[in-house]
Amino acid sequence: MTTFDRLKSVIRLRELAEDPVDLTREEVLTPKRVDHMRASALGFQLFYSTERVDEKTLFALADLAKETDAIKKMQSMQAGEVVNFIHGSQSENRPALHTAMRDFFEQPNSSQVAKEATKLAYAELQKLKEFLEEIESEEFTDLIQIGIGGSELGPKAVYVALEAFKKPGRRVHFLSNVDPDEAAAIFREVDPQKTLVVSVSKSGSTLETLTNQEIVRDWLKKEGIDPKKRLLAVTGKGSPMDNPSEYRASFYIWDYIGGRYSVTSMVGAVALAFAMGMDRFLEFLRGASAMDKAALQADPRTNLPLLSALLGIWNRNFLEHPTTAIIPYSHALSRFPAHLQQLDMESNGKRIDKEGKPVHFDTGPIIWGEPGTNGQHSFYQSIHQGTAVIPLEFIGFATAQYGEDLSYKGTFSQEKLLSNLFAQAVALAQGQKSENPNKVFPGNRPSRILLAHQLDPYTLGVLLAFYEHKVVFQGFIWNINSFDQEGVELGKKLALKFIDSFATKRRHESLKGFPLGEAYLSHLE
Amino acid sequence: MTTFDRLKSVIRLRELAEDPVDLTREEVLTPKRVDHMRASALGFQLFYSTERVDEKTLFALADLAKETDAIKKMQSMQAGEVVNFIHGSQSENRPALHTAMRDFFEQPNSSQVAKEATKLAYAELQKLKEFLEEIESEEFTDLIQIGIGGSELGPKAVYVALEAFKKPGRRVHFLSNVDPDEAAAIFREVDPQKTLVVSVSKSGSTLETLTNQEIVRDWLKKEGIDPKKRLLAVTGKGSPMDNPSEYRASFYIWDYIGGRYSVTSMVGAVALAFAMGMDRFLEFLRGASAMDKAALQADPRTNLPLLSALLGIWNRNFLEHPTTAIIPYSHALSRFPAHLQQLDMESNGKRIDKEGKPVHFDTGPIIWGEPGTNGQHSFYQSIHQGTAVIPLEFIGFATAQYGEDLSYKGTFSQEKLLSNLFAQAVALAQGQKSENPNKVFPGNRPSRILLAHQLDPYTLGVLLAFYEHKVVFQGFIWNINSFDQEGVELGKKLALKFIDSFATKRRHESLKGFPLGEAYLSHLE
Repeated sequence: MTTFDRLKSVIRLRELAEDPVDLTREEVLTPKRVDHMRASALGFQLFYSTERVDEKTLFALADLAKETDAIKKMQSMQAGEVVNFIHGSQSENRPALHTAMRDFFEQPNSSQVAKEATKLAYAELQKLKEFLEEIESEEFTDLIQIGIGGSELGPKAVYVALEAFKKPGRRVHFLSNVDPDEAAAIFREVDPQKTLVVSVSKSGSTLETLTNQEIVRDWLKKEGIDPKKRLLAVTGKGSPMDNPSEYRASFYIWDYIGGRYSVTSMVGAVALAFAMGMDRFLEFLRGASAMDKAALQADPRTNLPLLSALLGIWNRNFLEHPTTAIIPYSHALSRFPAHLQQLDMESNGKRIDKEGKPVHFDTGPIIWGEPGTNGQHSFYQSIHQGTAVIPLEFIGFATAQYGEDLSYKGTFSQEKLLSNLFAQAVALAQGQKSENPNKVFPGNRPSRILLAHQLDPYTLGVLLAFYEHKVVFQGFIWNINSFDQEGVELGKKLALKFIDSFATKRRHESLKGFPLGEAYLSHLE
Repeated sequence: MTTFDRLKSVIRLRELAEDPVDLTREEVLTPKRVDHMRASALGFQLFYSTERVDEKTLFALADLAKETDAIKKMQSMQAGEVVNFIHGSQSENRPALHTAMRDFFEQPNSSQVAKEATKLAYAELQKLKEFLEEIESEEFTDLIQIGIGGSELGPKAVYVALEAFKKPGRRVHFLSNVDPDEAAAIFREVDPQKTLVVSVSKSGSTLETLTNQEIVRDWLKKEGIDPKKRLLAVTGKGSPMDNPSEYRASFYIWDYIGGRYSVTSMVGAVALAFAMGMDRFLEFLRGASAMDKAALQADPRTNLPLLSALLGIWNRNFLEHPTTAIIPYSHALSRFPAHLQQLDMESNGKRIDKEGKPVHFDTGPIIWGEPGTNGQHSFYQSIHQGTAVIPLEFIGFATAQYGEDLSYKGTFSQEKLLSNLFAQAVALAQGQKSENPNKVFPGNRPSRILLAHQLDPYTLGVLLAFYEHKVVFQGFIWNINSFDQEGVELGKKLALKFIDSFATKRRHESLKGFPLGEAYLSHLE
């Protein structure tokens, strides 16, 4: 198989990148271009006229998708073929079936493997529905979800995004870090008598999660509560946490669901359905599933995640920009960039291809971001006038969630918010000439805009799956494995050595005082 | 004046960067090296043995500080000389006197300008103290701070960091974004009868802040409350917001305090002293002031912010890494990276030097980060095995804030937390060889560790000023202006055009439905 850097379309794109379209020229960013360079699907519009692409680039990018069989690989993934592997090395060797976790609506996948996974997932949803009905009379107000990585980032991003839709009086808290202050802060906010706890760990052996679970058990016991009546497990069948003598209920996940792709599985389902009710959670799944189907379309002009993946590759491999900032003009999406940071960087921050060979091109970019307009008053100075070019992905909505808005000086806040979003895309692309060197804006700073009507459960489902597939398409095109995470293992292994060393040392001398530097040193010896 | 890229020390550093120390070699990262490569001040230790530096590099970096008069410029800044300027162009032309906002303790600055600024600042603190005593009987529980950029990021980062130290029952909410959903969400959390409101805008004309202020006024009126009895202003003397007929009290800031350097001025003081009491807020100021004095020391081995600035320049300009991740192993510091993102990127994301000439070298890096250990389960895959090298700044503490910890499997959570921090620094530096290509870690990924005893008000003051001075030292060395932000103006200007267009259009047709793409288009015409 030809590696990415030797593909015909890549050689063509490299030529095109020597002279990309100059967005600062007056006749370039016209309404005609803006109108032409947009794609629509499932209520979303993607505007990409402020990217440094022209028709020739777009053709070459479409060729790249064809040359790398991107759509075929997406079909394979959704059908449950083994996509998580490295040829010739020991690897996880399994499917990635997150799309099966929500395939309950239109055009279900016809493959036997996918159907089987969907059936299992549906049974868990059914179990959850019954469980939530069963606890209705117990009047729980709060739920603490213990989990780290994908067991926190995705569910929390979705929870925060949809707080406007939650059931009155219900709240979810996320306990992830092994820092004991995180647990202590949560305990000050909840009534233990009205609190459920969900522990999430596929293997049932995540250090942070088991540690925090013990802290929560200890807290419940001190409050005179039997932990067994409050603890739920989300884990693999047969894991050490799949244990009815310690948990009130278990909900299952499977090894073909990666943590960062697990929001629509039980990892997200328990807390989210508790918070907003099963019907709204199903709407969220319906949105994600609709995008799964849309991601199978061959034409990048209607396949939004594929188009976005290709534009990202243009910025990363050809214009050579190492980072991408994701800027939602939506307060509700404040934790969404942190989820995408994991999704993208853990999937595609890789240095070998699926043949086990070190790559000679750049893989996944550094993903970061904060909501706008806030970012405008923070890091946008650097985005406009810094020495590193930062491609941006804007996200915006026509309508606010709560529907409470005020006209001030002739416009509503939502209109001001969107005006800022549009203005930034144009300002970054066109730049500004000036006699005053400090007022010169070089322009040609690429961005694209994703717009939808309102951030509701369905729309967020679409958006979540849009990004999942964007990331996966990039992995397919680079021919890397987007589904494993060997890069986190070395740190874990070394941490256990340090932990052992702490335990041993403490038996001999007190290390609870300040000479921590010495502790660090002594562990190295 | 010689530009940065032509300095003797820079030419020397460029030579050294061709063959930086190889941390993956077995004899390199020894306890001796770790012990030797650390610096201490004010209860902090900075460990930098996992940076790719040796004695020669450190000497050349120290020469760079000398050649650029870094310490002299720091003295000038603290003495109130005009440091915010661009030669030969219209510019803000004023001092940057944030250090004067807290110069109430040891070794006060002897310059007349600084003394005058400190006197004014002290009078405001006195006013605030009396105000807080006055409202004690009114039993306010909540305070909403309306402000964006530096009026939100710094104060919020500090508030979140010190929640363990706040007065029981008091909470602060930050309302920054023009997104109407942010206000709507806050209103659902507070009792209007018990809520104070602080509007923060130096000019009294920030669009987002004035808009949100109207929304809050409207909310108070609907609740039957006279806004004048609840609203406080933090603003410039004589600004449109300095108006006793609309605000219960005004607290002043001055044009020599940049937003991103304003946490220790009234911008942070009102909300923070409300939350944790004046004594603890003064402890915070005392820490910051102590670091101001320490930043004047000539020797980089004891001047922590200077040392950190130089190491950052080594990574940015010589090893050519475009980003820096700041990873506090502390849940309480979860919003601190967002503050540092503004502080650094708005200060040093610049493309011209102080002579008004475009620079031919890289300036401020892209700053991002999330707390550890959470990051380990998210983006660390890319940090260990991605194709872009990401320098890291770790922050850790020996002791938790709440003092509630549990021993699980032989160690406390705080020990597990620190073990992870140490292990990551070592793993990133040394890497790992393996037969399995997916288990190869290339190593040589630089990091440094800042350690202190406990995150309390004094320590956080030291830490805040450490970063302020690190950023400013880098600006001094690059000879750029770290105190203006012309780069945000173009977007603001264009946004107003779009806002006008929205207002005009709405008079003719309804734009409240979906055809927002059309709205975007029509504004371009």
